Amino acid sequence: MAALAQVLAGHGANIMDADQHTDRQAKLFFQRIHFDATELVTDEGTLERAIQEVATRFDMDITLRHQSKRKRIALMVSKYDHCLMDLLWRWKAGELECDIVQIISNHPDLGPVAKHFDVPFQVFTINKANKREQEDAEIALLKQQEVDLVIMARYMQILSAEFCAAFPRQVINIHHSFLPAFMGGKPYHRANERGVKLIGATAHYATADLDEGPIIEQDVARCSHRDSVDDLIRKGRDLEKLVLARAVRLHIQDRILVYGNKTVVFE
Amino acid sequence: MAALAQVLAGHGANIMDADQHTDRQAKLFFQRIHFDATELVTDEGTLERAIQEVATRFDMDITLRHQSKRKRIALMVSKYDHCLMDLLWRWKAGELECDIVQIISNHPDLGPVAKHFDVPFQVFTINKANKREQEDAEIALLKQQEVDLVIMARYMQILSAEFCAAFPRQVINIHHSFLPAFMGGKPYHRANERGVKLIGATAHYATADLDEGPIIEQDVARCSHRDSVDDLIRKGRDLEKLVLARAVRLHIQDRILVYGNKTVVFE
Amino acid sequence: MAALAQVLAGHGANIMDADQHTDRQAKLFFQRIHFDATELVTDEGTLERAIQEVATRFDMDITLRHQSKRKRIALMVSKYDHCLMDLLWRWKAGELECDIVQIISNHPDLGPVAKHFDVPFQVFTINKANKREQEDAEIALLKQQEVDLVIMARYMQILSAEFCAAFPRQVINIHHSFLPAFMGGKPYHRANERGVKLIGATAHYATADLDEGPIIEQDVARCSHRDSVDDLIRKGRDLEKLVLARAVRLHIQDRILVYGNKTVVFE
Amino acid sequence: MAALAQVLAGHGANIMDADQHTDRQAKLFFQRIHFDATELVTDEGTLERAIQEVATRFDMDITLRHQSKRKRIALMVSKYDHCLMDLLWRWKAGELECDIVQIISNHPDLGPVAKHFDVPFQVFTINKANKREQEDAEIALLKQQEVDLVIMARYMQILSAEFCAAFPRQVINIHHSFLPAFMGGKPYHRANERGVKLIGATAHYATADLDEGPIIEQDVARCSHRDSVDDLIRKGRDLEKLVLARAVRLHIQDRILVYGNKTVVFE
Repeated sequence: MAALAQVLAGHGANIMDADQHTDRQAKLFFQRIHFDATELVTDEGTLERAIQEVATRFDMDITLRHQSKRKRIALMVSKYDHCLMDLLWRWKAGELECDIVQIISNHPDLGPVAKHFDVPFQVFTINKANKREQEDAEIALLKQQEVDLVIMARYMQILSAEFCAAFPRQVINIHHSFLPAFMGGKPYHRANERGVKLIGATAHYATADLDEGPIIEQDVARCSHRDSVDDLIRKGRDLEKLVLARAVRLHIQDRILVYGNKTVVFE
Repeated sequence: MAALAQVLAGHGANIMDADQHTDRQAKLFFQRIHFDATELVTDEGTLERAIQEVATRFDMDITLRHQSKRKRIALMVSKYDHCLMDLLWRWKAGELECDIVQIISNHPDLGPVAKHFDVPFQVFTINKANKREQEDAEIALLKQQEVDLVIMARYMQILSAEFCAAFPRQVINIHHSFLPAFMGGKPYHRANERGVKLIGATAHYATADLDEGPIIEQDVARCSHRDSVDDLIRKGRDLEKLVLARAVRLHIQDRILVYGNKTVVFE
Repeated sequence: MAALAQVLAGHGANIMDADQHTDRQAKLFFQRIHFDATELVTDEGTLERAIQEVATRFDMDITLRHQSKRKRIALMVSKYDHCLMDLLWRWKAGELECDIVQIISNHPDLGPVAKHFDVPFQVFTINKANKREQEDAEIALLKQQEVDLVIMARYMQILSAEFCAAFPRQVINIHHSFLPAFMGGKPYHRANERGVKLIGATAHYATADLDEGPIIEQDVARCSHRDSVDDLIRKGRDLEKLVLARAVRLHIQDRILVYGNKTVVFE
Repeated sequence: MAALAQVLAGHGANIMDADQHTDRQAKLFFQRIHFDATELVTDEGTLERAIQEVATRFDMDITLRHQSKRKRIALMVSKYDHCLMDLLWRWKAGELECDIVQIISNHPDLGPVAKHFDVPFQVFTINKANKREQEDAEIALLKQQEVDLVIMARYMQILSAEFCAAFPRQVINIHHSFLPAFMGGKPYHRANERGVKLIGATAHYATADLDEGPIIEQDVARCSHRDSVDDLIRKGRDLEKLVLARAVRLHIQDRILVYGNKTVVFE
């Protein structure tokens, strides 16, 4: 921490925010530094080399990101529009500093929404026979669009291991339960059957093991015997919107560090 | 509903509170009526016969409870004292209108707490060889004490199916996770490993299937990467106390109706 | 309660849900009964007369509402679009069973949103000189549209006593603080100055006394020293949307009874 | 930040945790560093002088605290015992690493609790005539006991400006509302009158301006028309206990920085 702060100070970089965390069990140190490089006494290239030198010396993994370079984001959807509408509204309202460059769907239904927000929309119909082939086409499109982050905004298909591998820690999914409860399908129906008094939603990075990826954000809402499955679905939509939007915002601001199957989230 | 309200009105009983619920899927109607019988124009025996007649006519299960007859409660504990202390304090403070008549433990450690609150305390040490035998002795003591409700206040033994059958829907357990997540042992360790952003606690009726009984109450608290397992245990203690106390209070006030594996809770 | 249940049963009306509440201090009894009149053995007129007879006999105020008659709703907005978008989305998604028949604004900015959702939009510019006159024109339009409920979806004008009187208990406002804290203007700025650790939002019926009307629903979100005023405004938007939507839904379903300056909300 | 990290590293101090915050509006930088000094290559005196030199150079206020030196705490109570019991239980359970050395009350009622936990208990009866005199005696006792922190655990007297001045930022009070709502007395009665849907509690540093001191922690619980004033008081007790305990723990761990009338809380 001292060495890095010293390097930044020495080059005229101004630290705006810094957060540290030590996982004593895993013997890992995490740090996020947000600095202003507009008044460097050297130049960016020199600073980057000095930072890399510190990283090598202390055996640190370092990622440098420029706030000016906005992340390029793609949304994957099926027929539910609540998360899509919510993210697009937040984006237009300036809550999410990114470029939403592509919407992909396995159904044509939400095309008009994409059009209203002026985002390219492409349909890849998926069936058992064509799944891998269509996924390859999706990956090709996303790579061509130079996408940094894929958001599964209630996309009702399971991504293959190959797809996940193509975007490591770059796919965020929203699951409609407080994972690890009700992993898999129809969580609201199962919540209703089990008679729980809380329903939840979980945003996590998608991995090949369904619903097992690193959790970014979770929240819950109260329910009671009066809530039918339809009521749970309605209440759940609000949770899904909020939890996914928070996770996306944290990712865009580079506030999430992933290690093993867990996240450090510097809020 | 009309027939019952009519009977009560006709006998001079005054309805203080009433709650109804219809589970349309299960085709069941639930009702809780709290009435004042101090100004009956007939007498309690006549009223009870009239209520039973309505119940028979409409094929209803009816349970009549007198508020003046306080429930007799036993607590089962091991070494953790937080739920025990909390319940005993609430009881002394008048939050729980019941008689706590017995504390049972598989360890002698919490004897002094029982003594301080002047509640009989008996130790039944449990090992693999003597478990059923000791449970039978516990059941005998609880029956002799005419206990209406057994509270497992972090009792670290699994009750046998025989014990549960001896007190059907009369044993409340507190589980230290938001069931059905992390069923079984060491939920805080597993929550830490999984990297969840919420921990929870669940109060439920104990059944032969561990952690599968009807859920009465649940709550959660936020946690983060900064929380070690010890922090989760500390935060969890507060949840366990609150959730168990709420469940016990609801039970004492006869606000919980159990059907199948679910509860209707008339708050 | 008995008399009313008897009348309903006698006419073949089927009670779906019923809720009661007694305010012992105010010596008032409240009841909401949701019944199905499709299998009446008499007819609706006969049933209504019988209900009125009971009401007169027991000195009750009774309001009968037909679910089939959807409420006609007008929205009032200024420049902020988050509550407007949220309500219109929920309406289209079928969460709010009502007819949104008119949007009124003191600015033209949100016209395109109204157009997208195909709701008539009319601008009434307000200044000190024309306020009462413009309000009269608004009232005339709302009356002509036979509006049952007016929702101030972040409408940045204070309604006059005359306006409120024209729609008694029919105007819902969303205030961006946990009332009665930070009554009046700029609550997020004042919350930031005061250093609170929670921000809130409050939906209430509008009355001539600003921010003093009966509270329908409230909720809060955590904040910290890291939150600037802009962060509070952003977090607050989510609260405002959720709290207002819940209040509107409760009103539409006739779940709110107002007495004095308080509400009974039968959820 | 760089200079300080450099000094620590140079002397062999090992940074365990560090948190920073910049208030851009107030143009203030805050930092909390938790470091391990067991493997210093110099000695503590030398390190402290080096730290002071940095502080002077950058015009920083610096406070050094040794974790090994446990804070000495006094509790002030009246007749309510819930916060007292809760804090004493947490202390005995090891949640609060401090020494509770004195309990002061204006009533003798809670003496037995103090005795049970083996903490000196002294009564200072307060009336209008003797208030300042008795406060002076209290201050003398607290100074003699070398008390670092005074906790008003539902102490039902207003402290004078002189008392507050004797322990600047060293007196924590728990107020039974979500300040700034319901400042002053009888907040639960006023919450019931106003018909709020949430009640709250606020822990803050006591200042001469009643209920106006820097807020440390707040929380809320839902309530409804069904809750009488007594119910609010009961629900509120749980909030008061939790919120006060969290605030005390944060203070003990030196996680709170006060500036102006606000706090930075490094959790």
